Amino acid sequence: MTRQKPGPCPIVRSFDIIGSKWRLVVLNDLQESEKRFNELKRSTEASSRTLSRVLKELVSEGLVEKRVEEESPIATYYSLTSKGRELCPVFQEVNNWAEKWLEK
Amino acid sequence: MTRQKPGPCPIVRSFDIIGSKWRLVVLNDLQESEKRFNELKRSTEASSRTLSRVLKELVSEGLVEKRVEEESPIATYYSLTSKGRELCPVFQEVNNWAEKWLEK
Repeated sequence: MTRQKPGPCPIVRSFDIIGSKWRLVVLNDLQESEKRFNELKRSTEASSRTLSRVLKELVSEGLVEKRVEEESPIATYYSLTSKGRELCPVFQEVNNWAEKWLEK
Repeated sequence: MTRQKPGPCPIVRSFDIIGSKWRLVVLNDLQESEKRFNELKRSTEASSRTLSRVLKELVSEGLVEKRVEEESPIATYYSLTSKGRELCPVFQEVNNWAEKWLEK
């Protein structure tokens, strides 16, 4: 397919990256701190399958990084990269909006 | 299904509402001004089917309102409600992030 006009503007391209409920849930959750897979599973209430897929996507987008602790028992930790951490102001604004407009 | 703990916090509930690429695209587009269906179709590049569905969802979430101009030819306009307009700071922050992190 050829495009005759330039690609979508940055904000629209960013919706391809963050315009998904589970990606937002996981990114929001990792703002607190680095977390293990099972911690994320508990805190996000995502299924293992969904969480695995979403973490893989976020790693491939460069928003999350994976660190494997080789000691026994082997543990895998996930944390935000700078690119992911700098979404923090977005989450703050979503939170302000949610506090005002969504019933508690 | 019974829940033994309170529902998710406001920010997580807001991801159910705005955590979708097309909803974000349409909300972002309506920040400029009220638009007709066909204008939105051109500017968002969504299919008619997707755009109809997304507008219906956004109206039902109270983020967008629909106004029908009864003169001939009948025209339907869509605009943001206060609840939708107050997402503006979220889009500004996404835009700041996108300008920094996504290649032009």
